[in-house]
Amino acid sequence: MKQSIGVDIGGTNTCVGTVSADGTVHQRAQFRTDEYDNGIAYANRLAEAVREVMQGDTAIAADGWAGLGIGAPNGNYLSGSIEEPPNLRFKGITPLVDLLKERLDLPNIQLTNDANAAAIGEKIYGAAKDYSDFIMITLGTGLGSGIFVNNQLVYGHDGFAGEMGHISVIPDGRYCGFGRRGSLENYCSATGIRRTYFEMIAQRGGTTSLDHMPLGEITAKDIADAADQGDPIAQATMDFTGRLLGEALASSALITSPAAFFLFGGPVKAGEVLLGPTRRSFEKHLIPPFKNKIKIIESALPMGDAAIIGAAALVAC
Amino acid sequence: MKQSIGVDIGGTNTCVGTVSADGTVHQRAQFRTDEYDNGIAYANRLAEAVREVMQGDTAIAADGWAGLGIGAPNGNYLSGSIEEPPNLRFKGITPLVDLLKERLDLPNIQLTNDANAAAIGEKIYGAAKDYSDFIMITLGTGLGSGIFVNNQLVYGHDGFAGEMGHISVIPDGRYCGFGRRGSLENYCSATGIRRTYFEMIAQRGGTTSLDHMPLGEITAKDIADAADQGDPIAQATMDFTGRLLGEALASSALITSPAAFFLFGGPVKAGEVLLGPTRRSFEKHLIPPFKNKIKIIESALPMGDAAIIGAAALVAC
Repeated sequence: MKQSIGVDIGGTNTCVGTVSADGTVHQRAQFRTDEYDNGIAYANRLAEAVREVMQGDTAIAADGWAGLGIGAPNGNYLSGSIEEPPNLRFKGITPLVDLLKERLDLPNIQLTNDANAAAIGEKIYGAAKDYSDFIMITLGTGLGSGIFVNNQLVYGHDGFAGEMGHISVIPDGRYCGFGRRGSLENYCSATGIRRTYFEMIAQRGGTTSLDHMPLGEITAKDIADAADQGDPIAQATMDFTGRLLGEALASSALITSPAAFFLFGGPVKAGEVLLGPTRRSFEKHLIPPFKNKIKIIESALPMGDAAIIGAAALVAC
Repeated sequence: MKQSIGVDIGGTNTCVGTVSADGTVHQRAQFRTDEYDNGIAYANRLAEAVREVMQGDTAIAADGWAGLGIGAPNGNYLSGSIEEPPNLRFKGITPLVDLLKERLDLPNIQLTNDANAAAIGEKIYGAAKDYSDFIMITLGTGLGSGIFVNNQLVYGHDGFAGEMGHISVIPDGRYCGFGRRGSLENYCSATGIRRTYFEMIAQRGGTTSLDHMPLGEITAKDIADAADQGDPIAQATMDFTGRLLGEALASSALITSPAAFFLFGGPVKAGEVLLGPTRRSFEKHLIPPFKNKIKIIESALPMGDAAIIGAAALVAC
């Protein structure tokens, strides 16, 4: 396995890093995504950042590069384009792979969405090395997923497979935009967990162990930690989250029958407060041939670097 | 493509047929499945029926046989066994492929569940020939599904993938056995459509266009036909069915992004009364990158012979 370069395109920042064969990030560069409102200018800036980390990493450069992998919201592997990204200022279709091929001399440049990149990262560098069939779930602002079947990531007929965050879990439930309601990520993403926490406070009233924190600073990780330390409203929040997440994981397990789910993200770090109710609800919603054999485990990717590592994995194998 | 033999194992009858390279059934044999309460005796009887159709089909026999394919409830492709079948009298695990290999001299014997067999049949002999990514849905006593990704049927890590009938669609909805509630097949299988029809009569009262029929003889096909002819209670039934089915198809589309769904079964034959509301609900529950590009169409497999043809397709390619 050769060294490669990973790019994580977020709505606010773009992070670039060189990644060695063992999955460690060496040189890094970062710039603001939200300063760019067109794809050409953005591609120019990104190419500059890539050259910067390549030049900085003399150790790796000596062995040559496998290529450049990019994880981006609405990144389409088959077309190499970012298509109608909801959180970026450059709209429409940006053929980022083609733009970068004109600007960089690298043997392989690939693009996919961030959750697919995380799944490939888990497979190449993380805990999924020995799994041919698994599903990666990322809990962040949204809920992302990447699905492996038969040792291959599922892209579907058009490159958009793996959008589990948008499956319906509660008919006529929370509003999600696009005129749709009740989809999984409105409940079980990090953002969804915060919404549930406020709903629980609304229903139960009283005080919580996070009352001293500024409202806007409370994260899903804080709520998960509060649950772990016995806060009853936070525990009810994580129970509710796990119940819905487990049911949704069961539905997807019934479809592709993975050997394991890997969960990634801040709220997962608190461990059993989320994994416990998720596993119980998961088992409850399976039919007998599926019971007690599919694992739900924490991702082994490092929190900070997972997106860069995942993107790099896209071209490392 | 060579000729092969297809076996459709149902709870009541077992049907065996020889299938030529164009997907036509030639010689047939049938015997009662429910007379057998152990796998050995059943395998003996099945081998006898297979020999019978092979000997009857002298035209095909001259060219040799590709093999024998079997579709069975809870048939596991990877193990070649029928595992804990809910509707058969021989329980536990029956290693049917091994039992038949000992009894028949054929180059290839394979087993899968009935919906997977139908999906392969659609791919080899039906309307899915040009599709690499599609999902087959069968509406019968239960709701079965078979999923193609990248030109391969998805079996999952253990051979049990494709059980879409058991995904949850209504939290705390209708009872489905195993202590589970609200799963898709309780609403959208042929059996589920009948249940909805009676629920609609309960809610609305009044008369229906099927009042002259014996209660136990009313099928989902009758209800779909009544809807097509303007019966308002039957129309409400098909609208409700299509709404739930469309939402569930959208969830599965978000996971594997197929280019098309093929729907098979009696209620589908009435056409738009089911397909119309299904398509509308499907589009409503998709996010923009998925909208207006995934087809929902009727299976091209012949109603009576689909199970035999599908099973034969398992070894024909």
